[in-house]
Formats: sequence, structure tokens, C-alpha cells
Amino acid sequence: MIRVFSSDYRRRNGARTDPFPVRTLRRIERPTTKIDDSAVRRVDERDGGFRRADRGEYGPVIQREYRRFMTKHPLSGALLGMSKHLAPIAAGETGKSIAPSTDNPVFNARHIKETAYFLRADAAGICELPPYAVFTHSRWDGSPIELAHKYAIGILIDQDWKTAQASAGHDWISNSMSFLAYSTSGFIACVLAEYIRKLGYPARAHHAMNYQVVVPPILLWAGLGEMCRIGDIVLNPFLGPRFKAAVVTTDMPLAVDKPIDFGLQDFCDKCGKCARECPGQAIGRGAKETHNGYERWTTDVKKCTSMRVGNQLGSGCGMCIKVCPWNKPFTPFHRFVNRAIRDFPAVRSLAVKADDWLGYGKPKPGWKWWLDVEDVDGVYRDTARMSGDNE
Amino acid sequence: MIRVFSSDYRRRNGARTDPFPVRTLRRIERPTTKIDDSAVRRVDERDGGFRRADRGEYGPVIQREYRRFMTKHPLSGALLGMSKHLAPIAAGETGKSIAPSTDNPVFNARHIKETAYFLRADAAGICELPPYAVFTHSRWDGSPIELAHKYAIGILIDQDWKTAQASAGHDWISNSMSFLAYSTSGFIACVLAEYIRKLGYPARAHHAMNYQVVVPPILLWAGLGEMCRIGDIVLNPFLGPRFKAAVVTTDMPLAVDKPIDFGLQDFCDKCGKCARECPGQAIGRGAKETHNGYERWTTDVKKCTSMRVGNQLGSGCGMCIKVCPWNKPFTPFHRFVNRAIRDFPAVRSLAVKADDWLGYGKPKPGWKWWLDVEDVDGVYRDTARMSGDNE
Repeated sequence: MIRVFSSDYRRRNGARTDPFPVRTLRRIERPTTKIDDSAVRRVDERDGGFRRADRGEYGPVIQREYRRFMTKHPLSGALLGMSKHLAPIAAGETGKSIAPSTDNPVFNARHIKETAYFLRADAAGICELPPYAVFTHSRWDGSPIELAHKYAIGILIDQDWKTAQASAGHDWISNSMSFLAYSTSGFIACVLAEYIRKLGYPARAHHAMNYQVVVPPILLWAGLGEMCRIGDIVLNPFLGPRFKAAVVTTDMPLAVDKPIDFGLQDFCDKCGKCARECPGQAIGRGAKETHNGYERWTTDVKKCTSMRVGNQLGSGCGMCIKVCPWNKPFTPFHRFVNRAIRDFPAVRSLAVKADDWLGYGKPKPGWKWWLDVEDVDGVYRDTARMSGDNE
Repeated sequence: MIRVFSSDYRRRNGARTDPFPVRTLRRIERPTTKIDDSAVRRVDERDGGFRRADRGEYGPVIQREYRRFMTKHPLSGALLGMSKHLAPIAAGETGKSIAPSTDNPVFNARHIKETAYFLRADAAGICELPPYAVFTHSRWDGSPIELAHKYAIGILIDQDWKTAQASAGHDWISNSMSFLAYSTSGFIACVLAEYIRKLGYPARAHHAMNYQVVVPPILLWAGLGEMCRIGDIVLNPFLGPRFKAAVVTTDMPLAVDKPIDFGLQDFCDKCGKCARECPGQAIGRGAKETHNGYERWTTDVKKCTSMRVGNQLGSGCGMCIKVCPWNKPFTPFHRFVNRAIRDFPAVRSLAVKADDWLGYGKPKPGWKWWLDVEDVDGVYRDTARMSGDNE
């Protein structure tokens, strides 16, 4: 057996301590979000908010704006283009012979995670693929989806903390942050899936332009986060909600991770800053409700999509990500607070208040580096002059 | 004008000090490698070592082995495949209107570098494109190359320090390290070039599967390193030789960086560890010679290529990168030594000796994470059993 040094999370450039101390997380048997496995129905990808916007279900303005949603800013347009280039290479033929030394699931899981970190993933985790995490139909052509792979590997990429600090949350960089993380995680997933296929096992990459799976339940089961108050998204204890994920599904024998509990259900109950600051008033302030077998907070998908797509003073919206108290850099101070919040429930209410007192969640215009420009039918408009943002 | 906070090098996840303190580097007017601009002739890409191997100029064994050079290991094969997917998207049409706020070269240079760091580049620098850095002919189809872009943006990606530590230098991970950095820098260059085109300026990405430019002179002029003893490669003061580069060429008005001098010419004169450890005996131990207008140390390209391509106990070879004293993590201790070596010539001889005394450059098998496997005509061979490497 080849000896493996597993760092679990990224620990690459000589850091003495693991930047993401995954081993300190409490592992549990089932996700902290109550899931009634027998009640969850598979989802049709065509029922998503963006598809509805595209079909005109949110009105003609949102329908028209959806067509230029990603391309009205040149950086998000370039990143979307890259994700589209990655779409056709998500799947491929399995190699004809199985590589030696790949019959041990524990060894394989470590090896595959180390490979993901080598490929510069920020976090990776593995679970069995829940059958209900497979879409029924593709959003692209409406074709039925059948995917019987046994395991799913979640790959997270940071949307960039510095940019999140600088941003107002719903200005011109929001979509680029999303698609930086979508395209980069997609790139890694495509390489990893091709690698696994070459090892002799079926594998498929799933990324923003080519998902066959619903990502959140996979991240929950793979121990990459807990469901948070922001609609249907998973929050990682070290990246907060400031990431996007790609997935590789495969039949390679893999040991799986366990779900984690870092107190987020209690924290989000006490916080609600995302709901307070949401410019679209889309995030619920109340208690959890059960929907399709999941007991979680509710978000108004129509309002959220309409805010993002219809935003006339920016490209998309990520205010909830921006203002979340878990959206922090991983400095020693924030590591300390992070640990305290995870381990001591009594600290959480204070932490929520302190986050406001200390001014977190406000934009830092001095850190801004992107262009406030808008492509309108192929001609640029200097949005800065309109919004007075860059005086 | 939009205010810009420039970090020069990557400073993203809350690090209090810039991990790569570029501002401490001494800037000079011309590269430390003597270049006779009037004597340098443009190079034909078909004259490279790999092309010669492919044509049989290094014998039938090397010719045969070249065909499976990258694909005999599944990870380097997957990474090569990704680079090939990126080849056709290196170029594209320029947008029809120029974005506002892009007429100031100083602002543009900061903005473009910040965008590169946002896209997760490890280092970026800008120079005027030297005409002699453009290949005369493509290695792929022999077509003549004309490229009149005014500026070149160099983008560096680390080959992964942890893997470099673990590796013996010429085992089964070497080609994967190269192509991790080639494909990732190529990914970033493709997105960045597309972004610049959308801003209304011509731009082209150049990466491992699609270069129109010779990379080393660009990195020298862009202040990303000095030429080192290892054949025709540039060494970065913070990454050492442990990186690969992609380039974006463009006509967007850009302020340029100046070349840097961190004492490497003196250091490589005193060191020669790469030459001593080279398993192909390809790296010269002597003084510099002038070749095609460049005064630099010489490497036997035939021996180097034959070692890498012909290696029967591994995939490629990066022993010179592995053992170089500049191949270090960026811990506080190594930052201190790095600064001392750069600023005090008297320290250099001692540093060279200390590097051996302290055992640097030896493999750390406990950190190994990759598979020692070899694809032979579609069937796997467990190389570990042969080499006794994984007992």
C-alpha cells in the first residue's frame, strides 16, 4: 500500500497549521437539516428560478434581462464562456483497465481528496450519492436524467474574500464572483472526473453549465457544511457561504465522510442578518418549514431571482453572502471566534450583535478593483457615472 | 477614476502580510541576463526538444516514448487533455466597443493584475512584448506566426510545494506537476484574454498547448524572475523554479513592470546543485555562454529531453526544480532566509552549503499521495512493485 499523508483540506504552501482545521469539526450520522428520505422527490432542473425567468414566468422585464444576465458585465461574461467550454467535457469514456492499488475505499478517498487539493480545490468531501439528488430532467434540453453512480465528491472554490470585502453585495462584481467559483470548481471537477475514468472507473463532472445533480444535499452528506438561512444553500464552517461547488460522481470505491454539526441551525435562528439586508426581501425571517422532505428556512425564489436578474445597478446579487457573519477571512482572530461560536452556543447571540457593532458586512470601497461597466447591446455604458459609486 | 487597491501578488484570504512581498524586490532597467536585442533571432517552435524527439532526432526509443510521454500516467494524461481543450479558445474576436475608464495604462495594469489574482494566479507581471519573443513558426502545423501585440502579461502557477516535497524528482508525479501548472495558468490566461477582448482590445492567451511566444524573455522583462542555471528557465524569487507560466498578449494600454535583481546570477554561480543532481547530466556546471544573443548557462537539450521522455521509472523529470534551494515553502523562516540571500551576497555560499547540511532536496515519502501506476498500451502496470518504492 502506498503511504498517504492526508491533509483533508488545503495545506499547501508551507502553512504550519491547517488553514481549515477540519479535524476539529464534530461529525454526526445525519445532516442537521431534517431530511425525510422517503418523502424527498427528485427535482426537475427546469423548475429552477432561472429557467422560470427565461420562460417569462416572472414577467417580460425579467425574461428580457435574463438573456443578458451574465453577459452584461465583461468579466462574468468571460467566466460564463469558460464554463460553457467545460460543459461538453464533463463526461467521457471509462478506461479499459482498472489501475492497481485502487481497491481500498479508505485509501481511494484520501487519494482522491489529495488529488483535488493538488488541483487547487479549497475543500473536498465525499458521500454516497443520494438518489433524490439526481435531477429528473435537464434544464438544457428537457431530456430525462438517469445517473446511477454510487458516490459523489464535492469540490468547493472560494469566491474570493478580498472581493467580497470590497463589494457592496449587489454591484457589478457579484456575478463574476459566482462564476469565478463555478468555472474554477468546474475545471477541477472535469480534470478529476477524467482522471478517475482513466483509472478505470466511470465518473462524471457536474458543474454550473452541466449539472445532473442537486448540489446542496451532496454537500450536507459529504460533511462540507450545514444548510443555512439563505435559500437552499449550504454554508461551510470556514468559507461561510462564500463558495460555489462542483461535483464528481463515480463508482470508484470510496470511503465517505460524515455530515458535520457546527451549531449553524442555532446560529441562523439567532442571526437573520441575511434576511434583514436582502435587497429583494426574499429571505424568510421566520422558522423552518418542511418542503419536499427537507425542513429548512424558506426563500422566495421569485423575489431572489428577480432581484438578481433584474438588478439595474449591478450584475447579480450576493448581499446574503457578503453580510453573513460567517463570511470572514481565516486569520488567527477569526479562527478563534469561529471555534468559540462552534463550541459554545452561549457565544452565538453575542457574536451576531458584535458582527454589527464592529461594522462587518459594510463595503470597503478602497479595496475595489473591478470595473463598473455595463454592456448594453454591444456598447458600453459607464455605470459609475450613473450610480455615483466611484467619486 | 475607480480607486484601486493593488496587492501586486496574491493576498487573498486575510493574510496580514503579503505572502509574496514583491515591493521588497530591487527593480532594474534591464534583465540581469545580458540580452543583445539586435542579435536575438526569433525562434522556430519546431526546433524545441520535444519536437525533435517526436521527429526521431533523439533515436527511435525516445521517439516511441514521446508518443506516450504525458499519457502513460493517468493524472498527467487528464491534465494534458484539459490543456488541449483550452487550445482552441486562446484567441477570439475583439468586442466592438471599448469599455469606459480603460484609457489609463497605470490603472489598467493594476486592474488587469488584480483580475489575474482574482482568477487565482499566484503571480502576474507585465512587459512590452519583445519582438524576438514571438515564434517564427508553430510546432503544431508549421504555420508562420505573426503577432504584433504590444504588451505581454505573464501568469505564474505554483506546481504545488507539498508535492514537490514528497517527490523524488523523477518519479510518477513529475509530469502532473508540470501540467497542473500549465493547465491552470492556461485556464486563467484564456479567461483573462477573453475578458480583455470583451473590454474592446485585441488579446490572445498563450499556454502549453497553444504558445505563439517564447515565455522566458517575457518573464524576465515583466519582473517575474531571473534566468537561472537550469536550462532556459526563469526562477521566481518566491516560487523558485516550481511554476509554469501562461501569457496573455494584448494591445490594451498597460503600464509595464521593470525587471528584478535578487542576486540570482551570483547565487547560481555559487550553487550548481541542479547540475550535480540532474539524473540526465544535462545541466552545465560551467560559466555562462552566449547563445542567440542571450548570455546564460547552458543545458544539453537532447540529454534533458531524453531523460524526461525516456524515463522508465517515472513520468517526466523535475529533479532540478525539486532540489533547487529556491524551491521552498513561504514560511516565516524561509522568508527571512530568502531576504538575507537576496540582500547579502556573503550569505549565499553559506546558504548553498546549509541547504545540503539540512537535508533539503531529499524526498519525503510520508507526504506522498499519488499513484505509481503506468499505462502500457491501455493496460496498467503497478510500477510500485517494480521499483520497490512503496514498501
